[in-house]
Amino acid sequence: MDLKAYLKQKAALVDEAIMRYLPAPDTMPAKLHQAMRYSVMAGGKRVRPVLMLAACAAVGGNEKNALPAACAMEMIHTYSLIHDDLPAMDDDDFRRGRPTNHKVYGEATAILAGDALLTEAFILLSDARINSDVPPEVLLRVCSTIARCAGSMGMVGGQVVDMESEGKEIDFPTLEYIHTHKTGALILAAIQSGALIGGADEKTFDALKRYGGAVGLAFQVADDILDVVGDSQALGKSAGRDHARGKNTYPALIGLDASRSRARDLVNVAHQAIEPLGEAAEPLRAIASYIIERET
Amino acid sequence: MDLKAYLKQKAALVDEAIMRYLPAPDTMPAKLHQAMRYSVMAGGKRVRPVLMLAACAAVGGNEKNALPAACAMEMIHTYSLIHDDLPAMDDDDFRRGRPTNHKVYGEATAILAGDALLTEAFILLSDARINSDVPPEVLLRVCSTIARCAGSMGMVGGQVVDMESEGKEIDFPTLEYIHTHKTGALILAAIQSGALIGGADEKTFDALKRYGGAVGLAFQVADDILDVVGDSQALGKSAGRDHARGKNTYPALIGLDASRSRARDLVNVAHQAIEPLGEAAEPLRAIASYIIERET
Repeated sequence: MDLKAYLKQKAALVDEAIMRYLPAPDTMPAKLHQAMRYSVMAGGKRVRPVLMLAACAAVGGNEKNALPAACAMEMIHTYSLIHDDLPAMDDDDFRRGRPTNHKVYGEATAILAGDALLTEAFILLSDARINSDVPPEVLLRVCSTIARCAGSMGMVGGQVVDMESEGKEIDFPTLEYIHTHKTGALILAAIQSGALIGGADEKTFDALKRYGGAVGLAFQVADDILDVVGDSQALGKSAGRDHARGKNTYPALIGLDASRSRARDLVNVAHQAIEPLGEAAEPLRAIASYIIERET
Repeated sequence: MDLKAYLKQKAALVDEAIMRYLPAPDTMPAKLHQAMRYSVMAGGKRVRPVLMLAACAAVGGNEKNALPAACAMEMIHTYSLIHDDLPAMDDDDFRRGRPTNHKVYGEATAILAGDALLTEAFILLSDARINSDVPPEVLLRVCSTIARCAGSMGMVGGQVVDMESEGKEIDFPTLEYIHTHKTGALILAAIQSGALIGGADEKTFDALKRYGGAVGLAFQVADDILDVVGDSQALGKSAGRDHARGKNTYPALIGLDASRSRARDLVNVAHQAIEPLGEAAEPLRAIASYIIERET
């Protein structure tokens, strides 16, 4: 399949919907709504939303039904980036080649824009009219899945342990905790949500859960590798930056070759998990392969 | 009725439940979960949760069914205080006589503890098992109501306009915008959620919505008044502090007497709105009266 065209088309679908769902930029308070839009439209690849649409379609669901939840997922991802970049956290001035939210709108507004995006995600997830083709009990389970994966025992938990570990030597289980939580949890939530909205039976849901867990971790391992071998310009950030600031990465802990082999193993696990799904899961397979082949 | 005993009893109910719902303090990452608990247990009066339980009971519902949502509401309120106190925002070192979250746990952890509490609220709101006596479509509507009231067109919106207005002269509509959004929105959401969980019919729901709108605004007007005339020690913060930092308050804009009369008017509106509810709404009436009589 032509993955590049697929990703482009689905990302465009997400972009169009997310613009529609976000409050208009002149809605009071205008500065807040502009700050929210600034980061949402900062050129993300929409990995999580596209995975959700693909998972929904893979189980025979209508991907349109997953669009609001997919946009909610991207809002949560964006809020986490805004807060990560704050001076008290990673203190980053640039992301994807553009000034970070707090550099443009100030620190206070950036904190609040993050808070508002996280909240907006749950507005979208709980709106019965926007999600009229999803049964309320399914929507509630999606909401619960996403909240758990984003919270203190999911993404935020991973972020805290990552922060605490900076500049320290950590063991492998701690590194896997950071990666499965900080990055993996939201990717897993995207896959699970797509499966739920698509109406997957329990067996298929479990298969996709295995896929999501493997792909989520593989994604972060590949990111760590790219930080070492990638091209700064293509990445839109300084390669080697993680290493320079004492971030714990796979290559730093187990070396580049072992990291590559770990990423390959994870992608194999992902492929095996969804083997029974046949043709409809082709995009999910292609995305998993792409993770270890990508250069940005 | 003995309002003091009522408030104490209901607050104890909320305290017990919220301790049960929050992840244990030794759950990894322990520092994050301790930071979350630190601020949740910092001696809040549980105004919003108690209002939610009272609204639920006022329409004939079982207040126990509203406990998870009531705790979620308090988590959202607590997250907003943690973020408000940050150096980039109000830069407060103390709240209710104790060091603020970032003074104890550091700025990064405080930001993330706020993020996690906001997320935890939606974990609680969307958990079908914890809320097994509330129909999914009602729970979804509660989730939606709370999210809207907490978001960019609710509490966070009010916070942004408040911040932008600091040290500036603003007009009365802007001041009412700040107060109805920053403080009023969550109180309104608490009342609406209690009514929904209690199974209110549309007419009763609308009456309680009017009550919630009036009480929410009255609460902040009374707070502004207390900042001028209150006793610092009883308040657990410096009286006159709002004025000193150029915060826009009712007394500053329309004077103390007009502010008091505005608060009284609002409480009358609240009383009138719930007149048809009879005996079951007695706690709601007493709470509305208490707002303009309280000294802390």
